[in-house]
Amino acid sequence: MSTPRLSRRGLLGGGVAAAGVAGAFVAGRASADDAQAAVAASYAFRGEHQAGIVTPAQDRLHFAAFDLLTTDRDEVVALLQDWTAAAERMTRGDGAGEVGPVDGDPLLPPDDTGEAIGLPPARLTITFGFGPTFFDKLDLADRRPKALRRLPHFPADVLVEEISDGDLCVQACADDPQVAVHAVRNLARIAFGRAAVRWSQLGFGRTSSTSTTQDTPRNLFGFKDGTANLKAEQPELVDTHVWVGADDDPAAGWLAGGSYLVARRIAMTIELWDRQPLADQEQFVGRTKGAGAPLGGDKEFDEPDFDAVTGLAPTIPVDSHVRLVHPSFHGGAQMLRRGYNFVDGSTPLGALNAGLFFIAYVRDPDTHFIPIQNAMAKSDAMMEYLKVNGSALFVVPPGIAAGEYVGQSLFA
Amino acid sequence: MSTPRLSRRGLLGGGVAAAGVAGAFVAGRASADDAQAAVAASYAFRGEHQAGIVTPAQDRLHFAAFDLLTTDRDEVVALLQDWTAAAERMTRGDGAGEVGPVDGDPLLPPDDTGEAIGLPPARLTITFGFGPTFFDKLDLADRRPKALRRLPHFPADVLVEEISDGDLCVQACADDPQVAVHAVRNLARIAFGRAAVRWSQLGFGRTSSTSTTQDTPRNLFGFKDGTANLKAEQPELVDTHVWVGADDDPAAGWLAGGSYLVARRIAMTIELWDRQPLADQEQFVGRTKGAGAPLGGDKEFDEPDFDAVTGLAPTIPVDSHVRLVHPSFHGGAQMLRRGYNFVDGSTPLGALNAGLFFIAYVRDPDTHFIPIQNAMAKSDAMMEYLKVNGSALFVVPPGIAAGEYVGQSLFA
Repeated sequence: MSTPRLSRRGLLGGGVAAAGVAGAFVAGRASADDAQAAVAASYAFRGEHQAGIVTPAQDRLHFAAFDLLTTDRDEVVALLQDWTAAAERMTRGDGAGEVGPVDGDPLLPPDDTGEAIGLPPARLTITFGFGPTFFDKLDLADRRPKALRRLPHFPADVLVEEISDGDLCVQACADDPQVAVHAVRNLARIAFGRAAVRWSQLGFGRTSSTSTTQDTPRNLFGFKDGTANLKAEQPELVDTHVWVGADDDPAAGWLAGGSYLVARRIAMTIELWDRQPLADQEQFVGRTKGAGAPLGGDKEFDEPDFDAVTGLAPTIPVDSHVRLVHPSFHGGAQMLRRGYNFVDGSTPLGALNAGLFFIAYVRDPDTHFIPIQNAMAKSDAMMEYLKVNGSALFVVPPGIAAGEYVGQSLFA
Repeated sequence: MSTPRLSRRGLLGGGVAAAGVAGAFVAGRASADDAQAAVAASYAFRGEHQAGIVTPAQDRLHFAAFDLLTTDRDEVVALLQDWTAAAERMTRGDGAGEVGPVDGDPLLPPDDTGEAIGLPPARLTITFGFGPTFFDKLDLADRRPKALRRLPHFPADVLVEEISDGDLCVQACADDPQVAVHAVRNLARIAFGRAAVRWSQLGFGRTSSTSTTQDTPRNLFGFKDGTANLKAEQPELVDTHVWVGADDDPAAGWLAGGSYLVARRIAMTIELWDRQPLADQEQFVGRTKGAGAPLGGDKEFDEPDFDAVTGLAPTIPVDSHVRLVHPSFHGGAQMLRRGYNFVDGSTPLGALNAGLFFIAYVRDPDTHFIPIQNAMAKSDAMMEYLKVNGSALFVVPPGIAAGEYVGQSLFA
């Protein structure tokens, strides 16, 4: 796990002590010192694993999928080297390059687009991934991880091709959306001629905690989300469920210490949801709306009792979300979720184009995502209010040491 | 101008002193105390003018236009009364109503959607406006303000009808986007059967300061924006240029203390912009990119010298943005700008769907917006990188006293 460090952009003065600050930052009830220090804090780009996975989830997201414009492996390696250099600069609070004049020449375009000048690092992380088609286009099929293929069609998927899949992905998370947008925009600029944005998604509010130091946030159904999420403070569980092991995959030893990233754009029909009785909403979810306690329990972190009955029926209904996706019904499989709420304007029918941009990191989607998603899509009462219109699967290479570029183990 | 006060949602404990805090909050370099207190602070909903105009611009926006589903004046008055009650609750950090059980009945839908439970008020303001068609549909033509009509077609307008105009508008601004989204979503829920969302726009980063206590932010061209904007601390200028006077309009005395709201969705071709030389970018804008100084000047707040020449040409080019829109060429007319950066995913062509959601408040669009926009659209070098695809004009009624509902002076 990367270590928080302090940095700030050149135009900022002053200094704030921030040792361990991100771990101390509790969204929604931070102390004043914590809040200010967290904005100024940054995470190291290099480490055993990429930052942005078990890193305490930042508040805002800009996620982009890219398509390669070249099949030349050397050009792609050069792109990854350029992206690594820019990402390392931006995560510590510098520009992607010089605003200019670059090399003293005002007739060159700036090497940074400028909109983040004066803004602190805002705990920016940039996480890179490769999609299945990346391996096809670069003739790397012999090194392709075994579970990396287009996700199957699930019931209730209404996928739009233009916002699904991709050769590469970039997940930029930060506490300031302008910082996250600046990162994606500059990586797109740097990729010019080599890769182009395929689709892109902003998220305004995190819907998961990835650290025990964080409160559980709420999704757009108004319910606490991710109560039982994997947390950074559970390293053994994270090792078991998130990081690809050295012996997991003979063809892809290079992925050891990496992970799989599942991205799903889940549109919610929130106007319909808002007209359902409170009792029904709670039966669909399997938890209370206020406290987030499992039905029949008192407090958010009470264990759900799936054997409890009320009258003749299970207290936690058989088609409730919390039951259908619970690890106890899936061989113990857990995900590290890292999703975000979104509203992308409105639909032609006068509804808000709103939902959850689901992101999960798993060691193997064949055991840790696909069976769970099938159970949910087939039986979950909540599905009546969900439509999945974007979907993608990527592998996320391990972290890198000094002098390396992101994804280097694949090309070594 | 509304007075900041302290409040917080029921589920939050503790207390933070916040007297005058919003005025002390300087985005980008707040002290720790300021930052925390600002999140907890709230603005009064009632006052001489609606909040959200000269209020120091919050960081995030959710703007929605609504179409009426009824032409019954009594139903619309009831809607405005319901909206007033909910807006007053939400701006002080409460829910729009009870999460439930409402009236103790779990079979009723909640009166609040829940996703803002536990979040502080985040300086939320909610500002309401009426479009030209509002007056047509309610048979109120005799009370229609004289300048309230569909904006003319400007050069470079490529308007999309579905994201233009509207009978009503709601501008929700807050420092937490989840709070702003929650506000619009609940107002839409409350409007069910009486008005429906026509279009809606999120903005992630303010592009204007409306108070001398705020730093000048940057737009997605990477330049400081709004350096010469009207500020709350200039009450005489605000009276002259923003608030409709009691004698401005014999048919619309009810609008005294209100304003006109111009909304324009300005898409920027940022990828093209990013490939222009720094010197060209600065010539288009008429300011330096780093400091934001007018060309030929040193510092951001230096007055532009339009008579200065460099060689044979004006130092500030004749087609530069800063010159074309400067008050000295428009009879002294000034606007109070309150726009936001946006990125709405990406276009089918692989570009970021990015730009500036322009909002301006003016006393009279016929003198304070249309001539300036015509000059800009016809001659501004920056227009090569702009496409306006959404446009709307509204009037914003004055503020209200205790016991009144928003817009009451129109119906009185």
